[in-house]
Amino acid sequence: MRYYAEPVGRLIEELSKLPGVGPKTAQRLAFHLLHVPRNEAVALAKAIVEAHDKTLYCSVCTNLTDRDPCRICSDANRDRAVICVVEEPRDVVAVEKTREYRGHYHVLHGALSPIEGVGPEQLRISQLMARLADPELKEVIVATNPTVEGEATAAYLARLIKPMGVKVTRIAHGLPVGGDLEYADQVTLLRAMEGRREL
Amino acid sequence: MRYYAEPVGRLIEELSKLPGVGPKTAQRLAFHLLHVPRNEAVALAKAIVEAHDKTLYCSVCTNLTDRDPCRICSDANRDRAVICVVEEPRDVVAVEKTREYRGHYHVLHGALSPIEGVGPEQLRISQLMARLADPELKEVIVATNPTVEGEATAAYLARLIKPMGVKVTRIAHGLPVGGDLEYADQVTLLRAMEGRREL
Repeated sequence: MRYYAEPVGRLIEELSKLPGVGPKTAQRLAFHLLHVPRNEAVALAKAIVEAHDKTLYCSVCTNLTDRDPCRICSDANRDRAVICVVEEPRDVVAVEKTREYRGHYHVLHGALSPIEGVGPEQLRISQLMARLADPELKEVIVATNPTVEGEATAAYLARLIKPMGVKVTRIAHGLPVGGDLEYADQVTLLRAMEGRREL
Repeated sequence: MRYYAEPVGRLIEELSKLPGVGPKTAQRLAFHLLHVPRNEAVALAKAIVEAHDKTLYCSVCTNLTDRDPCRICSDANRDRAVICVVEEPRDVVAVEKTREYRGHYHVLHGALSPIEGVGPEQLRISQLMARLADPELKEVIVATNPTVEGEATAAYLARLIKPMGVKVTRIAHGLPVGGDLEYADQVTLLRAMEGRREL
């Protein structure tokens, strides 16, 4: 980093730690941040620290929130009969953006991955189990990612929850809307065939 | 931003202001910053503010620096006979990385662009003129970008400096090393032909 003034070098170094940010991008971002008015740079710095200091995990659904219980868990208009289980807080955002789902959520903060040492204890599964006692609950939708880890987690949850008399469903696999049969991989196409519905 | 807890939403908003960072990337960066230990997030925030507070512009070459005059301007081992004129501080880094150039620099902080209202007064040209009085100075290398604005700036500087008896040179245009004649644009190829050298 001897090419830069020391504070600039350190900023570039810190920015390089961000995912998807290489040395070139880090340099571009650093010079941008030096170029903008000081208050804009401070606003970003403050937002970073405040996001850390002012968010916590909802004691019910374990989603990131600035109040406990979170907005969704404390919303009386939402359907308590359904819990949608997702891997990460960003997945809650993805489902919310469909604007159709009106049930509750549960965030696992990961998926089962023996290879990375993630077992059931590392996920927020015990909190989910505690929520199953709610007599209003009818269905748990498992919306983990369609990856090996996500599927393993879904299978594990199904085995755990079914005996408790709650319906467990899995989101559908198939062709993405606007996709092309020709370019679909075999597994996806097979799943799409298996999951066919009568018109 | 109603999908996110308020501090998270604000962080995403601030991150979206960075160049090349869209809403998706901003969300990914935000969740990453929430995921890392607090001290890592604070380190980035601090680096942003300190880069602003601890850097200034060198009174000689107008490059970004943490001391005045900057390391390069105060380095007695560097050749005072040559000044390389560049548009931005990042261009100094680019030339330094060649590890061959041992002269001094001058940063214009932009290039002439009537369309964007950038005239000679907006650039650090008067500071450059003041440096021409140095009797040791023999050559000014104009290393502005090979764009319309960069070329206009180079032509302007040449007209200004030549009458003062200092040699003004322009970096060569031509094919990039490892490039391919077939894919070179016509103007670049024409410049490469014009700039041919005897072997």
